[in-house]
This record gives sequence, structure tokens and C-alpha cells, in this order.
Amino acid sequence: MTLPLGYRYASSYAKIRKVAKDDLALIVSDTPASAAAVFTANQVAAAPVVLSRQHLAATKGKLRAFLINAGNANCATRTGMEVAQQTVAAAAAALNIPANQVLPTSTGVIGVELKASLITKALPKLVKQLTPDGFQKVAEAIMTTDLVPKTATAELSLKGGTVCIAGMTKGSGMIMPNMATTLGFLMTDAALPAPVLKKMLTAATEESYHRLSVDGDTSTNDTVAIMANGASGITLKPADYPLFQQALTKLMQDLAAKIARDGEGATKLVTIHVSGARTNDEAARIARSIANSPLVKTAIAGSDPNWGRIICAAGYAGVKFDPAQVDIAMQGLLVCQGGLAAPFREKELKKRLDEKDVHIEFAFRGKRPGRAKFWTCDLTEGYIRINASYRT
Amino acid sequence: MTLPLGYRYASSYAKIRKVAKDDLALIVSDTPASAAAVFTANQVAAAPVVLSRQHLAATKGKLRAFLINAGNANCATRTGMEVAQQTVAAAAAALNIPANQVLPTSTGVIGVELKASLITKALPKLVKQLTPDGFQKVAEAIMTTDLVPKTATAELSLKGGTVCIAGMTKGSGMIMPNMATTLGFLMTDAALPAPVLKKMLTAATEESYHRLSVDGDTSTNDTVAIMANGASGITLKPADYPLFQQALTKLMQDLAAKIARDGEGATKLVTIHVSGARTNDEAARIARSIANSPLVKTAIAGSDPNWGRIICAAGYAGVKFDPAQVDIAMQGLLVCQGGLAAPFREKELKKRLDEKDVHIEFAFRGKRPGRAKFWTCDLTEGYIRINASYRT
Repeated sequence: MTLPLGYRYASSYAKIRKVAKDDLALIVSDTPASAAAVFTANQVAAAPVVLSRQHLAATKGKLRAFLINAGNANCATRTGMEVAQQTVAAAAAALNIPANQVLPTSTGVIGVELKASLITKALPKLVKQLTPDGFQKVAEAIMTTDLVPKTATAELSLKGGTVCIAGMTKGSGMIMPNMATTLGFLMTDAALPAPVLKKMLTAATEESYHRLSVDGDTSTNDTVAIMANGASGITLKPADYPLFQQALTKLMQDLAAKIARDGEGATKLVTIHVSGARTNDEAARIARSIANSPLVKTAIAGSDPNWGRIICAAGYAGVKFDPAQVDIAMQGLLVCQGGLAAPFREKELKKRLDEKDVHIEFAFRGKRPGRAKFWTCDLTEGYIRINASYRT
Repeated sequence: MTLPLGYRYASSYAKIRKVAKDDLALIVSDTPASAAAVFTANQVAAAPVVLSRQHLAATKGKLRAFLINAGNANCATRTGMEVAQQTVAAAAAALNIPANQVLPTSTGVIGVELKASLITKALPKLVKQLTPDGFQKVAEAIMTTDLVPKTATAELSLKGGTVCIAGMTKGSGMIMPNMATTLGFLMTDAALPAPVLKKMLTAATEESYHRLSVDGDTSTNDTVAIMANGASGITLKPADYPLFQQALTKLMQDLAAKIARDGEGATKLVTIHVSGARTNDEAARIARSIANSPLVKTAIAGSDPNWGRIICAAGYAGVKFDPAQVDIAMQGLLVCQGGLAAPFREKELKKRLDEKDVHIEFAFRGKRPGRAKFWTCDLTEGYIRINASYRT
């Protein structure tokens, strides 16, 4: 795994969460980096989201550090903004950088006061532990109900040389498209202007995190952020942008799929492919409706090729269509042909549905261009067990 | 329980479903009745829905009978429309009435051919069994995954005398607002014109079935229909309309709440009250978002007063608001005050949340008029168990 140059990472246990597992982390660029972020669209935005927006606006997209804590969302509390500001100030002081070059992010329980001192006291020591090798450790520290850390890297050969992108993400519940979902941190050693970075991140988010749903819920803290520090010595030329965009989108899709696969209680990653819609947006709406249907998700948990639930979920997506034009395949086997049952081998299909990767292809006949790919997971009793006692 | 005059009911087992339990039913008015219905908005509408729409249009709202089968949705099949027409014709012949005065409705599995002969053969005998006392038996015959039959009746004293309304409904999963949900059959012995009846049914549906969600899914077959046969001898005057509307709405809310309480795997009926919104529609959108949140529903299953999930779900309802203006109470105890944690007795509240009826009050401060009441249920492992193996 090749990581981008010029970044250091550290994490420690600051006693924010009850269990003794790292809950505080820093990702620092050695030099000021172009930066951009996509935030939750929830009306109830956590204090760190509000402060992060202010920082990126003030610096016009320049950052040195991501400050991350797990165990407490610092949301819907009396002292939220104060805590965010104090912890950012402490990080900036320890790193000797301007406060507004720190992007604060939090994840965890909502509505419980977060003690700033837990973080401010831990920061000087944490800064001393920063190391280029801390990437994986930080990916573990930011986990909440995640079962596995989620990372991805990409190398991109350009005329001028090679640049790297690395990403880590967390999240396994409360994940829903139409907003930045969960926490995601992306680092590249390419150099490119902040406005271009912002555009690329937004486009990549649209095709990755916004095409992801575990339970249809959307958090108050969701943030996906990127730094580009130029430590590779390579400044992207406009001709390189499409390639970089493609690599970034692919990497973020990889991260999004990892979140779905690790969905709370999930046993299967479900990838939904919609094609032949009028527009990509209509395709995405249909895919999202299928992905959010508890009936579809429980059927897949039970390896039940219940295509009726799939076409039914598509039917209430708010997109007009003629069911007679719909073909549906599961695991490569046609189950619905022109809106009617196709003669498939039920035993064979049930066996294929026992696999860890399930693919649903929902295709409108004809040559219309609208397509979407969407990631979700099955819905099992495990989801209930995890969420019926989160706080206790 | 006083039933409206002039209706007869019958049900029998026609071998549509595998288990030997009544699956075919008739509700017949002795005389032609004014009639109206609200149907699913799903793009994939079952054949009986399509045919029912045609019948009501052709007769301008006149019916003699509801023909109902459980065990097969007669949807997304090659022979759907043919089967609907044949069974309607058989019912009309046996009853000696015009075919378009029969409203066909089906519920059950999608995408499996329904054998018309099962129904057409059973109908002559079924018609002979019609009796004013068959109301409860029919309410049981229309159940699918329902655990209990769901009925409600109302008596309404008007200047001219007393009129009755009775209703029965089925449904415990795949229930979601914004469409007619599940199957509902309403009978009254008042006389009123079909266009007025249609208006009243639509208004009452808006405040009842459209304010109901079990799992966010919406069926291809949902139908709520009413007949008004005038057998009481009382013709409603326009001055009586508001009272009748009120009674009809209340009765349908009662049925909707019964569906939520019997939601698949549900252990609790959850009633959500939103107040102080700009409009009733915005209040309903917030209530629906809370009602559809798996995180809220699992928290309630676990008697966890996790109000953070409630304000979070409101936050992604697509309605702009200031969290500082939000108060939330659960079981009458304030848990969130101005968007922040209120000091509540956690043990006491957890105990109250163990009750079978859970109330969530979500109030915006100020005097804005928008209100909504919404019904849902908790989400438990039972829901998963029921739906992971429906077809098998």
C-alpha cells in the first residue's frame, strides 16, 4: 500500500468513549494543502460541521490538519461550538498552525456534552506521536460500530510522474444518500487548486457516498474531506483532471462499498445497477428506493429471489415508468422479463444468493442513457440488536 | 357493535393460499350504493387496481360489491387483467348485478399467476352464504401476515336519525404513507352523493392511512374503498357533512392505528405528534421522517429514550428549521428542550417506554399552526424473521 507523501498520522485513547480504544486522531499535512469537504445536509448540523464550514470559507480551501474524535458527536449540546473551538485551538497550538487550517470532525452519541479537556490535554502528546506510518492506526481509531477499518489507496501515473491518493472512512449505520455520509478522509500528494478539488470531490461524492444506503438515516455529522498537498512535486494540469477525477471517484466508490458491506448487522454487500432510465438522476432514484426497501433487504438476507418486492420498490420511487419495459436480473439470472416472472431455476438462484456479494440489475428496455450504481446491504436481526441498545 | 344496515358478508377457503384459511370474501350491498376509492400511487399497479379504477369511472361511483382475495396479489403476472375480469364477471353473474358494480381487490404474493377458476368456482356457493352477520369472518379472511383482524364502527346521531359506519382493514407490513395503504373496506347506511363521498374519503385518507408507516414500503395493490347505500333511510344534508367527515376520519384513524400496532414484528404502537410547523404538510413530512427512521424505531423497541435520533430524523425531512426551537417529549416527559438535552429521569422514562403505547411529541416553539399526527410501530427482530422468508 503506497501512501501519499507529506502526511503524518496519530491516534490515542482520550477517554471519550467508555471502552479503552483509541478515540482521538490527527491527520496532518507537512505543508499547507488545498482542501475541500462535503457536509451533511441535515438541518441539525453538529458544531464541528458548522465550524468546519467556517474554516474552509475563511481559508478559501486551505488546511493542514483533520482533527477527529469518536465516541461523541458533539451535537445538540449546550457547549458544542465552544468545545469545537477549544479543541481546534489546542490542535493548532500544538501543531503551530493557524486554527482555521484545522478541520474538526466528530462521531458518536448525540446530545451528550463532550468534555473539551479530554481532547485538549491529549493533543500535545498526540502531536508528538505523528508518523507517516500511522495511517492504519487512525483508520481504526475513527471506527464506532464498524467491525473493520476501511481504507483504499490509488496510484496514478501521469506524464510528470506518479501521484498517490489514500482514503479512510468510517460508518456502518445511519447512512443514506443525498448528503455527505459518514466520515471520510482523503489525502493526495498531487497539487491542484482548491476550487478544482472542490468540484472533483463533489462529483465523486455524487457517484459514491451519495449512492450508498445502510438504513436510510442520515447523520448530523457527516463529512467527507480531502487535502492535496503537492508533496509529490507534481502539479496537475487541466489535461490530467479527468484521470484524477476517475481515480478519486473509483477510490471513493471502493470506500462506499466497504461501508455497505460492513453495514450494521449486514451479511451481504448488495450492488444495484439501474440502466435505461431517462436520466442518471431518475436511475439513482429508482436504485435508492430499492436500496432503502426493508422488504427487499430482508428478502436478500433470506436468499429469497423475491423480485416482486424489487419492482414494487421501484414503483414508488417517484419515477414514471411502464412495468412492461422492465427486466430484472439477480446474480446474473433473469428473474423478471418485461414486468413478468421469468422462468428461472429457483434452487440455483437461492444458492447464488447465499454469496457475500449480491448484484441486482434493473434495466429498462430501449436505449435511454440514464444509469446508476448503488450500494447497500441486507437487513438482518443483527441490525436490530445493535441499534436497540446503542446508548446503554 | 352496531353494523350499518343493508350489507351482507361471506368468506370461504378457495385454496388460493397454501394454508387452509379463508382467502376469498364478498361484501355486498343490498341496493346500489354510492362508492369511492383511493388507490396505490405505485407505478406498478396490480390488475385489480386498474380494473377497479375503470369500474368507478364507468359507473360514476356506483357499486354493489367488494370482491376480495388474499394469498395472491394478482400483480405482475401474464394473466392478471384476464383473471380480474373473469372473477368479477363470475361474482356479477352469481349476484345478478352489472360487472362494473363489483370492485375487485387482491393481496398476497406478487408475480405468481393466480388461477381464476379457484375463485370463479367458489363464488356461487359463497354468494349463497352471504349474511349480515359475516362481518367479523370477512375481516379475518382478508388477513395475510396480520395477527389480529382490524375493525371499527361508529354511530352518528343526526337530526334525521342515526347512521352507522363500519370498516375493516388488513395490512401489517409494506405500509407507507403518500398512497392509499393496505386494503380497507368501509360501509355506511347513510345516503350521500358519490362525488361528496369521494371528497370525504380522500380527506379522511390524508389524515389516517397517509399518516401511517410500518416499513416505508408501499404495495402495488393498496386500496381503500367505501360504499354508502342509504339503507338507514337517512340522506345526509350538506349541514351534516362536517359531522360525517369527522366520524369517518376518526374511524379510519382508528383502523390506521390498529395496522401500526399490528405491524410485522411490532411490540409497540408509536404515535408521533408534530406541532408548530409552518404548515400541516411540513408537520407531516417531519412526522413521516421520524416514523420511517429505523434508528428511531429500534431505539423504541429497546425502550431507549434516544431523542438525538428523533431530532436527527427530523433534520433530514427536507423541512428547514432551527434546532434551537425544538422541544421533544416522550411519554409526556420532556427529553429535549430548545434542541438540547433536557434533564429527565432516565430510569423513569425507560420504564414508561416499556409500555405498549409510545407517544413522541415534537414541537416547534411559537404559534405556527402546522400540526400532524402519525402512526408507526417499533422495529424488532420479529420484522426480519417474518420478511426474510415470506415466499418460502
